[in-house]
Amino acid sequence: MEGVNMRKCYFDHVAANPLHPDVFDAMMPYFREEFGNPLSVYDLGQKAKEAIEKARGEVASLVNAKPSTIIFTSSGAEANNFALRGIALARQNHGKHVIVSKVEHHSILNSARFLEKSGFVVTYLPVDTHGLVDLEMLKKSITKETVLISVAHASSEIGSIEPIKEIVKIAKERDVIVHSDAVATAGNIPVDVKDLGVDLLSMAAHQFYGPKGAGALYVKEGLRIVPLIYGGIQEGGRRAGTENVPAIVGMGAAARVAGNEIDSRMKHCSELRDKMITNVLKIPNVYLTGHPENRLPHHASFVVEFIEGEAMLLMLSMKGIYAASGSACSSKALKSSPVLLSLGIPSGLAQGSIVFTLGKDNTEADADYFLDEFPRIISRLREMSPFAKGWGEGNENSEGEKCYTGG
Amino acid sequence: MEGVNMRKCYFDHVAANPLHPDVFDAMMPYFREEFGNPLSVYDLGQKAKEAIEKARGEVASLVNAKPSTIIFTSSGAEANNFALRGIALARQNHGKHVIVSKVEHHSILNSARFLEKSGFVVTYLPVDTHGLVDLEMLKKSITKETVLISVAHASSEIGSIEPIKEIVKIAKERDVIVHSDAVATAGNIPVDVKDLGVDLLSMAAHQFYGPKGAGALYVKEGLRIVPLIYGGIQEGGRRAGTENVPAIVGMGAAARVAGNEIDSRMKHCSELRDKMITNVLKIPNVYLTGHPENRLPHHASFVVEFIEGEAMLLMLSMKGIYAASGSACSSKALKSSPVLLSLGIPSGLAQGSIVFTLGKDNTEADADYFLDEFPRIISRLREMSPFAKGWGEGNENSEGEKCYTGG
Repeated sequence: MEGVNMRKCYFDHVAANPLHPDVFDAMMPYFREEFGNPLSVYDLGQKAKEAIEKARGEVASLVNAKPSTIIFTSSGAEANNFALRGIALARQNHGKHVIVSKVEHHSILNSARFLEKSGFVVTYLPVDTHGLVDLEMLKKSITKETVLISVAHASSEIGSIEPIKEIVKIAKERDVIVHSDAVATAGNIPVDVKDLGVDLLSMAAHQFYGPKGAGALYVKEGLRIVPLIYGGIQEGGRRAGTENVPAIVGMGAAARVAGNEIDSRMKHCSELRDKMITNVLKIPNVYLTGHPENRLPHHASFVVEFIEGEAMLLMLSMKGIYAASGSACSSKALKSSPVLLSLGIPSGLAQGSIVFTLGKDNTEADADYFLDEFPRIISRLREMSPFAKGWGEGNENSEGEKCYTGG
Repeated sequence: MEGVNMRKCYFDHVAANPLHPDVFDAMMPYFREEFGNPLSVYDLGQKAKEAIEKARGEVASLVNAKPSTIIFTSSGAEANNFALRGIALARQNHGKHVIVSKVEHHSILNSARFLEKSGFVVTYLPVDTHGLVDLEMLKKSITKETVLISVAHASSEIGSIEPIKEIVKIAKERDVIVHSDAVATAGNIPVDVKDLGVDLLSMAAHQFYGPKGAGALYVKEGLRIVPLIYGGIQEGGRRAGTENVPAIVGMGAAARVAGNEIDSRMKHCSELRDKMITNVLKIPNVYLTGHPENRLPHHASFVVEFIEGEAMLLMLSMKGIYAASGSACSSKALKSSPVLLSLGIPSGLAQGSIVFTLGKDNTEADADYFLDEFPRIISRLREMSPFAKGWGEGNENSEGEKCYTGG
């Protein structure tokens, strides 16, 4: 049954995407023919420079920004580190308090911990059972010392889309800078920096069929930021290092294609997603994580009682179905996801996390195949599970798990 | 004469290299077929993981290190920032004094300035007229507070190879950590971390026919370093961000090919270099910068009196000859190179900086063509130069320039 003709269902698009063919084609000339350094004054260098400026315009267009406000980085993680530390350092004379949500990506949470070690105070904003930040708590958390609020546009782990416009409104009343990690949203749903009102916004090309190794940080015009990587005059002196020309060109091409295709991709993915969510929730003791409606169109995430996420991943992959358990960046860590715990999901149940993220090339047949296999896999794993056996027989954690009504 | 059949002489290999065909071929499968995230547990992810671990071994071999000591970064600049700030932060309880040389790359010098703003004291070590650090001054500069010495293995601007082994010997007597920026040397001349004795060493793939967007930092086993980019568990938790798999694979392939070809490349380049240096120095009022013998085999750098580097670059490029003036990262800055000033070269003369860096595909005919054109270009520019006309007619700077005997 694991034969060569087994169906392959790639449902892990937040972990990685194959390059879009147009992106691949756009990048190719910059490896061997147009290999110049964009800082070189001769034609070969100037062609590389023109290529990255074209890409800057394409990425800017995707989020309705001016080209000059886009700084290319090597990843979304770098953009997030840059935003948090760069603004905190630039504004530390105004105050040393930063606010982030509890459902941020590790690159935000661990940057925040670094800031704490550097003498900043960080507030970790609680979220409701759907993972949305508590706006009343946000209001109460802002002090005269607050220089930055960072809340992800959407969590790649639970798919919920945060109320960034409302967050910005609250922040602007108190003159506080707002950064949003839009790695999960940019290129997947409309992202408009002017409409959102954010001061900084992070993106990653490999989330929308662009290359790994290319990210960007939008920095509102006139806002001062301290570099994360010092050196030469690349990116207006704000991010040093020889530009990764092919990857930047690829990010530009991916942004252009995503801009054209975003509506049809969203429609396609959300239809498959809804079918998957509706049918998976028919399985007993399986709960949706994140918001039921206000979520990424390609995102379906669950916690499955009595089973570990890792075991599901392995069984699924034996059937050619590729998924994730929590965020890719922590999928090998055995402890429960802090994001799920912050939703009030008990630790035991959080270990049964499974995340499916769809892409433009997934089909109705993929969803049908998955919906045929997944209930069987859950049944088989539950038969083997010591937790399932312990259920109702005095298992210490069972009381808490039974009470869970989230999702 | 600028027709389509004009010879192209690419003499700017420190600015950029075309990918080696084997490197290009090695990278290709990782864009569309093997596109997995190395952290994903299923086969597609594991193949990506295996590919980066193979590359880690290849890069480690190039510098005679263990694979586990290699941390991939997005560039040499990132590796340099990571080394300086990561060690300074990790060891700040031991002391807050760092020593760098005056001929370091901007990514070192500007990181050092950042450390100064963060409360560290930095000593900028002087160099002799060939750009070699003053070992007696180094000895005197080390205090009980010194936690790190960072000296480049070679400067890409003047080509001189620094006495790293002697520096390490002095440092180790005082228990001080040593980092070397080997971006200009790794893959171009033998680099052996054990023989050199360094604790940290930076590399960049695009200096040896590998891709842009791939660098690495060697960190000696057991040495603690604070991350520059926080986030997930990639690179052992020391450098976050989804791995740029194709670029890392490319760096590995480039390291393997460089290891095999390094002797023949060095012989080939040094022969062309010697021919170019010998003949260029026959032009009146042209001086070699950097060490006459102990220099990179592919590196020929000069200062040309009465002419600006930028003007030479443009005239050369009209003849299809591509070169640099100072380091690529500052070639658009109009002020004199701090590296050249630190050699004792007067500011006016330093503006006449021109750097030629050879590659494996340059030919004897390239050198001959260049040696035919370059003297004519200098003559023509001098005819137009206000500095040349002012020479000996009371020009304020001329006295200093006349006296220059460096190189």
